[in-house]
Amino acid sequence: MNQAFIAALEAEIHQQSLGETPQELYDPIRYLMQLGGKRIRPVLCLLSYSLFKADWQKVVNPALAIEIFHNFTLMHDDIMDKAPLRRGKQTVHEKWNDNIAILSGDVMLVNAYQYLNQCQHLTLAEYQHVVLRFNRTAAEVCEGQQMDMNFESRDQVRVDEYIEMIRLKTSVLIGLSMEMGGLLAGVDAAKARILYEIGECIGLGFQLKDDLLDVYGDPEKFGKQVGGDILANKKTYLLIRALETARGESALSLQHWLTAVQPDPVEKVRAITALYSELGIRAEAEEKINEYFDQAFQSIDRLNLNSGQKEALGKFLSGLVDREV
Amino acid sequence: MNQAFIAALEAEIHQQSLGETPQELYDPIRYLMQLGGKRIRPVLCLLSYSLFKADWQKVVNPALAIEIFHNFTLMHDDIMDKAPLRRGKQTVHEKWNDNIAILSGDVMLVNAYQYLNQCQHLTLAEYQHVVLRFNRTAAEVCEGQQMDMNFESRDQVRVDEYIEMIRLKTSVLIGLSMEMGGLLAGVDAAKARILYEIGECIGLGFQLKDDLLDVYGDPEKFGKQVGGDILANKKTYLLIRALETARGESALSLQHWLTAVQPDPVEKVRAITALYSELGIRAEAEEKINEYFDQAFQSIDRLNLNSGQKEALGKFLSGLVDREV
Repeated sequence: MNQAFIAALEAEIHQQSLGETPQELYDPIRYLMQLGGKRIRPVLCLLSYSLFKADWQKVVNPALAIEIFHNFTLMHDDIMDKAPLRRGKQTVHEKWNDNIAILSGDVMLVNAYQYLNQCQHLTLAEYQHVVLRFNRTAAEVCEGQQMDMNFESRDQVRVDEYIEMIRLKTSVLIGLSMEMGGLLAGVDAAKARILYEIGECIGLGFQLKDDLLDVYGDPEKFGKQVGGDILANKKTYLLIRALETARGESALSLQHWLTAVQPDPVEKVRAITALYSELGIRAEAEEKINEYFDQAFQSIDRLNLNSGQKEALGKFLSGLVDREV
Repeated sequence: MNQAFIAALEAEIHQQSLGETPQELYDPIRYLMQLGGKRIRPVLCLLSYSLFKADWQKVVNPALAIEIFHNFTLMHDDIMDKAPLRRGKQTVHEKWNDNIAILSGDVMLVNAYQYLNQCQHLTLAEYQHVVLRFNRTAAEVCEGQQMDMNFESRDQVRVDEYIEMIRLKTSVLIGLSMEMGGLLAGVDAAKARILYEIGECIGLGFQLKDDLLDVYGDPEKFGKQVGGDILANKKTYLLIRALETARGESALSLQHWLTAVQPDPVEKVRAITALYSELGIRAEAEEKINEYFDQAFQSIDRLNLNSGQKEALGKFLSGLVDREV
């Protein structure tokens, strides 16, 4: 099923077009959309729709709107974060320039709305509710990015603030993907809410897993530098919890590595990784991920799906958290 | 009538809200929206709607979507153009920073779509046609901005290319404002097309008038530096035509001033202004503006309005071109 979803999405991405000239505006959109990625969000949307209706082919375009929106946020976030690489290739602002990445991203967001606009089987009120949820979520994703940037210049960030930031930056869009699948299939408000909550929990687990993989991922499989967050002193869940729980020697050692000028990178990653394990933070993060995951599965039970549907959904969601890349 | 439109629009702008925190994201939106401006686009939309239906109050929000979109383009264009001032005040990227101007602009565009989404009296198909036209126009405005940036690094720009650039960057949105007023009032495709053409012509005249005012505006009334385009060697209609038509002494003098290193600014503005007049380019631009204007009025005749309506529309449109600021 998921293979069929992906094939349909890729076919549409391949022929995606809102315009052609000036080339500087449209080439970066094609470039970024065709860099690949797992298309998690639109697949979740189609999977969610399929729980209630069979004819998922007719909502491929609105599902794709979520993927285009997601890629638009990547294009603009990469400018703000001055990121040189995305999926192992040059980012748009590096390959072209900042202005092109700003403007091309803007057109991409417009493009996302045009894909969302291709959905003829609802009433006006139902459709406008979908758009309202899309808009609210889109604004929240930007709020999450702003919080993330604000955290960089702060000395201290609390765990609850961090969780709220990743909820906005990552989870709400995964929640929306599930919810939109349901709304497009005409489910009631209660079911739509459950679908959203499932996605939101999975999104939180997904992001915490990202923090873990940065430290404990297999370098062969992970595809990017292991320990990158540690070297950048990035305030991840792991670092925030380490700062909260370290005492005595551990606290001194942590401060030493965080403030060291040009430390040996291998040594720094090794020392902080050891501290995380010592302080029990790796185990704590894994437990937290499992909690979100269990919560998502409890919500799935409330959907009253048949066993086949439940298994398909559960399997896909498990894959998002039980991953090594 | 126009005063009533503006009052309704300003009231809505004043209480405009899509979110509150983080402040860095929402303060710039309020700041820019409240810097003022003539609200030409939403007024045109409401005026156009009023030609066909009386209850314009119910389309204030979709009309405002156009104004929010317009201000979003200003926020992002000012980053790209490194502009320090907008309406005599600091631009958003100057008052805050580039990243905030990018992200706040993104939320603003989402906000525009949420205002557009507040329009309950159409069928789904009619509504989605409005959104399609909005999307197509939004992409074109970005295309115009990209062309404008591309022109900066080119040695030569032809008049037809320049006209196409200002058509995309400015006129299509004024066209859409008129068209959307009609579509929201339920006019047929032929009338919608005429409304669009009226706005497009007026937009072209409006922009050429801008080029003229930069050179010939009354410094007391104009509010910005007269001759700014000349000092920046900006490829306006006037400069492009001067480069095309100047021969002999005039051509040499023009090249001298365009390539002079740190020329006396007063002298440069005086010399190039004199060249424009000598070459008959001021008269030519005025004639061109009148042509667009006449074309718009011929289109108005095709709308079969009563004389009162025709007068109200004509008066407002004349004001856009017969202006000194």
